Amino acid sequence: LKLGELGEFGLIDRISRKAHLSHSVRIGIGDDAAAIEPGAGLLTLVTTDMLVEGVHFDLDYSDPITLGRKSLAVNLSDIAAMGGVPRHFLVSMAVPGETPVEFMDAFFEGMVSLGDDFGVSLIGGDTSSSPRGLVVSITVMGEQTPDLVVTRSGARPGDLIWVTGTLGDSALGLALLKKGTGEGGAVRRHLDPIPRVREGIRLAEGRLASAMIDISDGLLADLGHILELSRVGARICLGRLPLSDDFLAKRDLAGEDLFSLPLGGGEDYELLFASSPENTSAIQTAMAETGTACTTIGEITSLPGLSIVAENGEEYLPEKQGYNHFLK
Amino acid sequence: LKLGELGEFGLIDRISRKAHLSHSVRIGIGDDAAAIEPGAGLLTLVTTDMLVEGVHFDLDYSDPITLGRKSLAVNLSDIAAMGGVPRHFLVSMAVPGETPVEFMDAFFEGMVSLGDDFGVSLIGGDTSSSPRGLVVSITVMGEQTPDLVVTRSGARPGDLIWVTGTLGDSALGLALLKKGTGEGGAVRRHLDPIPRVREGIRLAEGRLASAMIDISDGLLADLGHILELSRVGARICLGRLPLSDDFLAKRDLAGEDLFSLPLGGGEDYELLFASSPENTSAIQTAMAETGTACTTIGEITSLPGLSIVAENGEEYLPEKQGYNHFLK
Repeated sequence: LKLGELGEFGLIDRISRKAHLSHSVRIGIGDDAAAIEPGAGLLTLVTTDMLVEGVHFDLDYSDPITLGRKSLAVNLSDIAAMGGVPRHFLVSMAVPGETPVEFMDAFFEGMVSLGDDFGVSLIGGDTSSSPRGLVVSITVMGEQTPDLVVTRSGARPGDLIWVTGTLGDSALGLALLKKGTGEGGAVRRHLDPIPRVREGIRLAEGRLASAMIDISDGLLADLGHILELSRVGARICLGRLPLSDDFLAKRDLAGEDLFSLPLGGGEDYELLFASSPENTSAIQTAMAETGTACTTIGEITSLPGLSIVAENGEEYLPEKQGYNHFLK
Repeated sequence: LKLGELGEFGLIDRISRKAHLSHSVRIGIGDDAAAIEPGAGLLTLVTTDMLVEGVHFDLDYSDPITLGRKSLAVNLSDIAAMGGVPRHFLVSMAVPGETPVEFMDAFFEGMVSLGDDFGVSLIGGDTSSSPRGLVVSITVMGEQTPDLVVTRSGARPGDLIWVTGTLGDSALGLALLKKGTGEGGAVRRHLDPIPRVREGIRLAEGRLASAMIDISDGLLADLGHILELSRVGARICLGRLPLSDDFLAKRDLAGEDLFSLPLGGGEDYELLFASSPENTSAIQTAMAETGTACTTIGEITSLPGLSIVAENGEEYLPEKQGYNHFLK
């Protein structure tokens, strides 16, 4: 069955049957707008990300279930980076008419299953035909107490700089996929990233992060956003960057130097945050409870700019700074 | 200057400078997510619509300012159809790299100016390169008291069926544009529809609508949604359909019968609602205060199905039912 045979309203019916609604949803899919009840005294956090075939994903590399999961995951990651609790999401898609309905079923199954893992309900969206390629746009709404929301602008000189998990796997995974070797942890990290939602909430609720961002454009680019908005500088140590075993075993295949992918590769969807040194043991305890490793990679400085210190103590000059749409 | 020279972050900077923030916005453009303060005791209404070049718009017909206005207008229309007060919006765009920055400036200028007209603030979004064509996805958030929200499902037998404004202009305008005659009221209605936000709020606050929808897919298709969700039928009278002078003067140019565009043309972005006959004078007073005409076109019946009565009293059978993506 092709979408061209099922039609828009048949598709909406199939999607609504997959949506699991939480008690805060007063009106879900099927009216002009959804209606939700915001939590009393909480701020609403809202973020949106668009994924374009040929730019953000390649249907040769990803099955539709995994693509559905990732489309939602990259948005949940933004809520996580504010320390927010994600609650609801909407999905708009432009879909070529020859797309099989089974593709859409699998895509929504993946997306809703990741939503279920994090207690996030699908409440609405829009479907349109596309003359050229698949485009997915997701909006996620979350919430948090006003004084616990973590922005990019609160880093202070002397704060330590932390990252969750490991860096560079996703970019290595993409490089491996392009070479036709589509297996292993790095490839999985690229295709099916798990957003650090629980970690972000723990950090916010413990007031353990002065500034936070998720690493989507690459460590250097995203740290740069914190530095710019916090009006501070930073020094990071190459030798401290957390690298996975799969990364260390396979990175020679990517043909880049050891640090280019962890520094600039992007799509890690790890949390990068700053925190006063006195919080160190509380951070370690909180992260141990989530089961996620967390590493200090440097510190915030009052001197502007970012300096990267190599293991021999010399300054390291990275080749690329991170992903920027439109710039080649 | 092309986007390929300005880059993603340069573009975001330019956009943020255009955004006018209201007091409810705690964090606007520039962090991982926006943060807004929901109104106490109100439901949050949220809707999203995607516009795809070659499906929803043609850059040969619309200048970027007008396209920016329409992209937001079609979303505001959905909030209006719930009786909601729109407050905030997010915009995601996939944009070909060769697009001039001036195009983007004008697009956002149009969008923000329409937002200003209705008190709606741009609070976030996402920009991406596009390998093929422009795609715009907008999410609008609004609010309303829980018991004033108007759904599609409350129409009752005996209710009168009302529409604001006139029908068929937009579809006629598109037909005229395709023939190369791009002037006049119908063409303006197609390119620059004004969402019936104030009218929707007045109807909701006066409890004057038992069910409401905006006409985007065409009167018959959208009335069909109300009938299905309210589990009722309807009878409408062709002779009562409100038609504009420009429509009557030019509709022969479209080469279709007099009623096919008002019934099935779509993109009217008028409000279609049901209301008990006892509300008639209150509706007329409320709509007169907004300056928008409002017409009864039929009534809700307990008998399921939709019957259309021609001016000679006979049943009229429409050729097409409205727009459905994916179906040819």
